Amino acid sequence: MSKDQDANKAENEPDGLRAGELAVELPERFDASLYFIGHIQTPWKRRADCPKNPREADAICTIIVAPRWLAALEGLETVTHLVVLYWMDRARRDLVVQAPAHYAERRGTFALRSPVRPNPIAVSVVRLLGIDNNRLSVVGLDCLDGTPLLDIKPYFASTDSVPDASVGWHAALKRRTG
Amino acid sequence: MSKDQDANKAENEPDGLRAGELAVELPERFDASLYFIGHIQTPWKRRADCPKNPREADAICTIIVAPRWLAALEGLETVTHLVVLYWMDRARRDLVVQAPAHYAERRGTFALRSPVRPNPIAVSVVRLLGIDNNRLSVVGLDCLDGTPLLDIKPYFASTDSVPDASVGWHAALKRRTG
Repeated sequence: MSKDQDANKAENEPDGLRAGELAVELPERFDASLYFIGHIQTPWKRRADCPKNPREADAICTIIVAPRWLAALEGLETVTHLVVLYWMDRARRDLVVQAPAHYAERRGTFALRSPVRPNPIAVSVVRLLGIDNNRLSVVGLDCLDGTPLLDIKPYFASTDSVPDASVGWHAALKRRTG
Repeated sequence: MSKDQDANKAENEPDGLRAGELAVELPERFDASLYFIGHIQTPWKRRADCPKNPREADAICTIIVAPRWLAALEGLETVTHLVVLYWMDRARRDLVVQAPAHYAERRGTFALRSPVRPNPIAVSVVRLLGIDNNRLSVVGLDCLDGTPLLDIKPYFASTDSVPDASVGWHAALKRRTG
């Protein structure tokens, strides 16, 4: 059986796992709960349209903060970059090993930025263009239109920026695939 | 009344607010739920002992991943830095404007990295020293011993590192206070 056939077969299996992927039984109960504090407007209506990573995302997106939290934006206009947390609400949560379609090899969930993870919280660093009442214009998001918002934080270069950090498996992949 | 007296008075108010702080009514229900996937061992047993920010935190801490998720660490050993998400479970969630004790001015919650926020999820960038089964040795955390773990992600300098980002209100404060 060719690799392609094998992948097709796995994708058609009833549990939706690709070859080499591994799911675990989820815990019986949750431990904490979240409020959606707003949502994100982006140009991407379907997952297939989303940029593969924020580096490729130069579209201006709009973060809409629910009116209840408006006063919490005070002082944010002095900040150049934000850490935005949002909820990837369409992702399954039980995979511990994944074989993303665009990588040849399987990888542990915590070694990936995939939306599929026990707690599907995305962390994105964005550039703040401006604030108009409860609407923030930003560049650097790659999520679906309507994605629920969890948090906004100021980005501190002193603690958040590590220019020489590396992800070994990703660098090796790039060396091989060019 | 002196500034100190004023601050004392506010701290003694029954609602626990300092002068200038603002609380809102929390939403009636939660929108999503989290699993604690492990916990963090640190040298700090009381909040007063914690370093004021991760920059000052050079202690080696240990992230303990619950056995259920062990396979999700595969490939993480090739990564130099991690984004660690954890739950600040002792923080109130209803403050939109805060007057942190170490700053003279009040500030919106989303312009601060305070644990007090609608969804008390902390984001810390740490250096990974090593992995021994389900135990990760890291440098760069400043949280209490026993803090619940939410997620571990690889840190990608290409999208996560912005060396020239600035937080205007904080820079102005440092210029004034030296």
